[in-house]
Amino acid sequence: MANPTDSSTAGYTVEGHLNRLQARIETQLSQCLPESPSRHQLLAAMDYGLTGGGKRLRPLLVYAAGALLDAPQSRLDTVALSVEMIHAYSLIHDDLPAMDDDDLRRGRPTCHLAFDEATAILAGDALQSEAFRQLAGITHPDPARPARMIALLAEAAGPLGMAGGQALDLALTGGPADEAALTRLHEQKTGALIAAALQLGGLAADEIPDSRLDQLGHIGRDIGLAFQIQDDVLDATTNTEVLGKRQGADAARAHPTFTSLLGTEEATRRYRQLYAEALSALAPFGQRSELLAGLIDAMMQRSH
Amino acid sequence: MANPTDSSTAGYTVEGHLNRLQARIETQLSQCLPESPSRHQLLAAMDYGLTGGGKRLRPLLVYAAGALLDAPQSRLDTVALSVEMIHAYSLIHDDLPAMDDDDLRRGRPTCHLAFDEATAILAGDALQSEAFRQLAGITHPDPARPARMIALLAEAAGPLGMAGGQALDLALTGGPADEAALTRLHEQKTGALIAAALQLGGLAADEIPDSRLDQLGHIGRDIGLAFQIQDDVLDATTNTEVLGKRQGADAARAHPTFTSLLGTEEATRRYRQLYAEALSALAPFGQRSELLAGLIDAMMQRSH
Repeated sequence: MANPTDSSTAGYTVEGHLNRLQARIETQLSQCLPESPSRHQLLAAMDYGLTGGGKRLRPLLVYAAGALLDAPQSRLDTVALSVEMIHAYSLIHDDLPAMDDDDLRRGRPTCHLAFDEATAILAGDALQSEAFRQLAGITHPDPARPARMIALLAEAAGPLGMAGGQALDLALTGGPADEAALTRLHEQKTGALIAAALQLGGLAADEIPDSRLDQLGHIGRDIGLAFQIQDDVLDATTNTEVLGKRQGADAARAHPTFTSLLGTEEATRRYRQLYAEALSALAPFGQRSELLAGLIDAMMQRSH
Repeated sequence: MANPTDSSTAGYTVEGHLNRLQARIETQLSQCLPESPSRHQLLAAMDYGLTGGGKRLRPLLVYAAGALLDAPQSRLDTVALSVEMIHAYSLIHDDLPAMDDDDLRRGRPTCHLAFDEATAILAGDALQSEAFRQLAGITHPDPARPARMIALLAEAAGPLGMAGGQALDLALTGGPADEAALTRLHEQKTGALIAAALQLGGLAADEIPDSRLDQLGHIGRDIGLAFQIQDDVLDATTNTEVLGKRQGADAARAHPTFTSLLGTEEATRRYRQLYAEALSALAPFGQRSELLAGLIDAMMQRSH
């Protein structure tokens, strides 16, 4: 595992690099929406959904995976934006009264409370369109690459990916569930987009062998599941102020979680092991894996 | 204007051709969704939203525009599906309680009544992802063409297109509006996707000059606006049974319409003129415009 403070460049730290990328992401997210002569509520609601802060995990994964294969930063910028737009749209829709009915997101009122329900639905819809529009606009030496990346992102977002996972999640509420069902749910709901973020970062490079693309997908599924199990552990053991959302919201709806199924201790062991496996899988990428290793390390250490 | 019964091929009629295309569209829509090992409600709701019948105007426009430029049918099939998926997603979301709160669509319960609200939101979301995934999968001699088509469809669907138009529509309810505002609303809400359908049909051809692409956009905006004005006229003068939706739903919410602003007679004159202009604009395309001319003719004659 790379040590975040270990680098051949004087003054360089992985932590500093991640912080600079995070600032870059925030700037880009605040500037990425199209202008409209009749600038309406919809664009304001999209902007609200995009710029509320957050860990920016998925765009960071895009940059870190791109670094594995020397992808140019300008191309990664667009890919990172697209992935975060899909994530932001899903959060807006997941928070709706008909779905998770959440009031708080990242410590602020959710989009349908800050605006209204119709505007929140449309803001999510329009963010999804924008994600694909922006991704379609990248330039790549392989002219077929943008469409390939769009197909991958759309599959991760669609009925067998993120949206499908959310449907499984809603179906599970109040019902019985075993670990396999919960794992399948989260592989779709969270894992698919996290894996796609890594693979899209790789595809942003001029060249990527299929074997490397497969490895990125595998690492993505591991850390996606780790992230979710860790979320359940943090949700069961941390208070609202720190999380910026209601404590134990899933538990309050009798929704099965990894901690309710496995207990906190076993769930903790499980997610740490998955992160460790992801770090081991970085070996073939050599020194270029420093950024991704540092990011996984930071994920493992997070307290909210 | 082409006469639907006039063709050099014995037994061929434009009307018959359109009917065969419509049947082809229905078959493809009923088979286009991915299979899932845990086939869930979400896919059933997507299927429900796709297969409820309807005029299939947008996919027909894709085929008719493709015929102008000799685009291969197999490529048009996918393009037509993608456009109809975007349309179907928008109908599901527009019908939601937080939006137009409609109970009936094409004579059947709307998706959120046939399933539930959360599933309807997700079905719309997942149909949008699927539309871009399928479009990304087309093969074209120009490898950059699929991404170009996706950019065009995403722009038509997004904040400055269909979703933006729906936001303007919601903002208009109960408020004052002039003809210019109503026109701008419908250019985005309906016109953008109809223009995109024609342009995508053209882009499915191996080659299309920019001038022809512009002409298709212009024709699309004309018939999109004509279609909407005609909708308002039919809505004001026809009963629920024929329309398959509540009579005068817009009027009941004090929503301005072209008939409320212009009167039925002037609105009728206006939409007929727009259709006639679209037909005139087909002249440069010669004999290959027979199918599109027949379709516009059928649109002009429709009674629901």
